[in-house]
Amino acid sequence: MSADPLSRVFAALADPTRRDMVARLASSDATVGELAQPYDMSVQAVSKHLRVLQDAGLVSRTTDARRAPVQLEAEVLDLMTRWIERYRRQAEDRFRRLDDVLDGLPDRAGRPEIATNGEAS
Amino acid sequence: MSADPLSRVFAALADPTRRDMVARLASSDATVGELAQPYDMSVQAVSKHLRVLQDAGLVSRTTDARRAPVQLEAEVLDLMTRWIERYRRQAEDRFRRLDDVLDGLPDRAGRPEIATNGEAS
Repeated sequence: MSADPLSRVFAALADPTRRDMVARLASSDATVGELAQPYDMSVQAVSKHLRVLQDAGLVSRTTDARRAPVQLEAEVLDLMTRWIERYRRQAEDRFRRLDDVLDGLPDRAGRPEIATNGEAS
Repeated sequence: MSADPLSRVFAALADPTRRDMVARLASSDATVGELAQPYDMSVQAVSKHLRVLQDAGLVSRTTDARRAPVQLEAEVLDLMTRWIERYRRQAEDRFRRLDDVLDGLPDRAGRPEIATNGEAS
């Protein structure tokens, strides 16, 4: 697995079980045993998944004890959305400008300027 | 690699070169050759990365030709942010409620109700 932080976070969430764990930890802290309950999986397998999430900084544990609660580190999710949103917005702005150009084409002579609606809700 | 769409997208972005390609395609379409230029990488290696992005639905190409432009499919990024934001918000709301409870603790007797400021900017 790649060493940079963002690659680790994306890789950690590239697994449905780990995403499910994150989803459950978003609503409440849980012990490893509690996390393991709904899955047809050994506590060891769950611990392995947790270690991947922990290495990515997505969850934290105060100790390694089984009964220690696992906590979600929500600000790491922020790191991802900032990355994604930056490029999504950039791409969308580009497509919007392209649409504006295409909209302007048929009556280009009559309407040289396209009205831009800056405050779309 | 897991078969579900969200796992494929997260896995595709768990690589710095592929994230860089997405970042560049956000600002303009590019051919495989153009995409390969800044990397110390063969066109074949770049094509391999592109195939991972394509399988995840993040980019599209009209043909397999080298000179056909590669386009970013920005709405797939939306799928990720919706997933992430849902749990980030849930976790943050939970921490905020916890903070409110902790804030209320020292003078619990004097101030049974905590003023909630719903419209924080």
